Amino acid sequence: MTKRIACIGAGTVGRAWAVVFARAGHEVTLHDADPAQVDRALPLIRQTLEQLDEDDPEAAMARIHPAANIMEAVRGAVFVQESVREDLAIKRAVVAEIASHAGTDAIIASSTSALPGSSFLGDLPRPERVLVAHSVNPPSLIPLVELCATPLTAPDVVEQTRSIMAGLGMRPVVLKKEIDGFLLNRLQFTLMAEALHLVGEGYCEPEDIDTVMTQGLALRWLTLGPFATVHLNASGGFAGFVEQLGPMMRRMGADARTDYDWDPALAERIHTQMEKAMPVEDLARWQAWRDSRIHANRDSQSAGEAEKPPE
Amino acid sequence: MTKRIACIGAGTVGRAWAVVFARAGHEVTLHDADPAQVDRALPLIRQTLEQLDEDDPEAAMARIHPAANIMEAVRGAVFVQESVREDLAIKRAVVAEIASHAGTDAIIASSTSALPGSSFLGDLPRPERVLVAHSVNPPSLIPLVELCATPLTAPDVVEQTRSIMAGLGMRPVVLKKEIDGFLLNRLQFTLMAEALHLVGEGYCEPEDIDTVMTQGLALRWLTLGPFATVHLNASGGFAGFVEQLGPMMRRMGADARTDYDWDPALAERIHTQMEKAMPVEDLARWQAWRDSRIHANRDSQSAGEAEKPPE
Repeated sequence: MTKRIACIGAGTVGRAWAVVFARAGHEVTLHDADPAQVDRALPLIRQTLEQLDEDDPEAAMARIHPAANIMEAVRGAVFVQESVREDLAIKRAVVAEIASHAGTDAIIASSTSALPGSSFLGDLPRPERVLVAHSVNPPSLIPLVELCATPLTAPDVVEQTRSIMAGLGMRPVVLKKEIDGFLLNRLQFTLMAEALHLVGEGYCEPEDIDTVMTQGLALRWLTLGPFATVHLNASGGFAGFVEQLGPMMRRMGADARTDYDWDPALAERIHTQMEKAMPVEDLARWQAWRDSRIHANRDSQSAGEAEKPPE
Repeated sequence: MTKRIACIGAGTVGRAWAVVFARAGHEVTLHDADPAQVDRALPLIRQTLEQLDEDDPEAAMARIHPAANIMEAVRGAVFVQESVREDLAIKRAVVAEIASHAGTDAIIASSTSALPGSSFLGDLPRPERVLVAHSVNPPSLIPLVELCATPLTAPDVVEQTRSIMAGLGMRPVVLKKEIDGFLLNRLQFTLMAEALHLVGEGYCEPEDIDTVMTQGLALRWLTLGPFATVHLNASGGFAGFVEQLGPMMRRMGADARTDYDWDPALAERIHTQMEKAMPVEDLARWQAWRDSRIHANRDSQSAGEAEKPPE
């Protein structure tokens, strides 16, 4: 069913959200405090739609409507996705303006990637319809979206948001309570913290960490997450693995130095190595390659879903 | 150039190594203390060769020669891959027997996944030709192999092993000094430790962790490891990311509870959830699916390597 959706903020995240909603057939208003940002976003949105092999990119484009201000953008919208700059004061002000103009039943979702929702979503009119919907950059390619209620969000609003996201082809997970960094960034930067320890203490080079992931763990994790991987890695399933290798699991966890005090010199050394393979002045080319690979990896993954043994 | 290779131990890991060496054109002897284990391994090796679309599986099979004892297996071998049970006393005894019969120039590599090499590889005749080559299960599908010298291993032996592994189509990384768990298991179980904390403290379900990985992080990590991912995620490359989001990286690392004291009740709860989707009595079917997916994911990855922008 076609809905009217407002996307507030037209940077990388906001314009990818516009793509996601428009591809799914919704009418989308797109607003940015800087009108030039919307002008820049529209051709990039068309490009993304073409890269995604959208059947009719022009039809999807025709569903995206620039809006001059927040009031105009949110008028009649049933769902508002806020994706402005990650700055507490700006987020606060923008979400307050959205809340004052949006219909009383409109759901307001914030794209914050690290700020806990209750730090800026609590003191609004009708805070029960406000929550965090943290996507992974760019949501037009990566289906995960983390939904996190504040203590004031109504459970029904979470459920409706989950259903809207699933209808877009996204893969929502719902956090049961607030935590700094949600799930993805906690997992990502916990692993990265131990990687910084291993590089910083001279066990390996940064490129070795990257090889371990691409040529080892990710070949499994694209198809099976860490728990399912372990479940299939012992004859007795997860319980069997824990029985055999639980002591190693515990030891690795206890040994990890995720509070390792890495310094600017280490970050600089890693940057220099990354620069050698992917120079900063060429990043756009590498990002385009990455995006086309994420697209292909997702195709490989979807083919696998279709071949899953019957449960 | 065809080499004579000995594979000692014909379990899951040992027989996958036999596949890797035989596919690359080497003559392989295969020995197990239990001769029935070799009998069981041979048809499984044929099956793996067929699944890998080996052009001529019978030719590869004809290069694999069962050996009645270690002396016979290692005679004339230039490289010995030990893959017996992960038990310090057994490993010690088997590697000592290999070392007493192998040619003085033969390289001896142990498949241990967690035991530090110096705990059982140091007190051998000519310890300078002995090292750890830790593969990921199964090495016939997953290219990563972690090479780790003991303090007594000659640098030239590490270099030769790296070259042999690269010639097999494997992707070797060389650790610069010994560390418990090497790189892969440290990274895997550091992330898993934080995941156990998140599930144990009621932030999410185990399947949510798996969704975050398959539908989020792994779509990137199959193509770009964690450092390269971050390098492409900010306009200034890795240094730019650290400047903008370094405080969040540090906070996530410091907040991680990788020493979280998970208990058998939590492990049991996770097992029950995994069981619902993938019953233990059906694990073989799910493992076969996983293996065919790893194969497909690797194809997606290789296609991406071929399309990489020129450096």
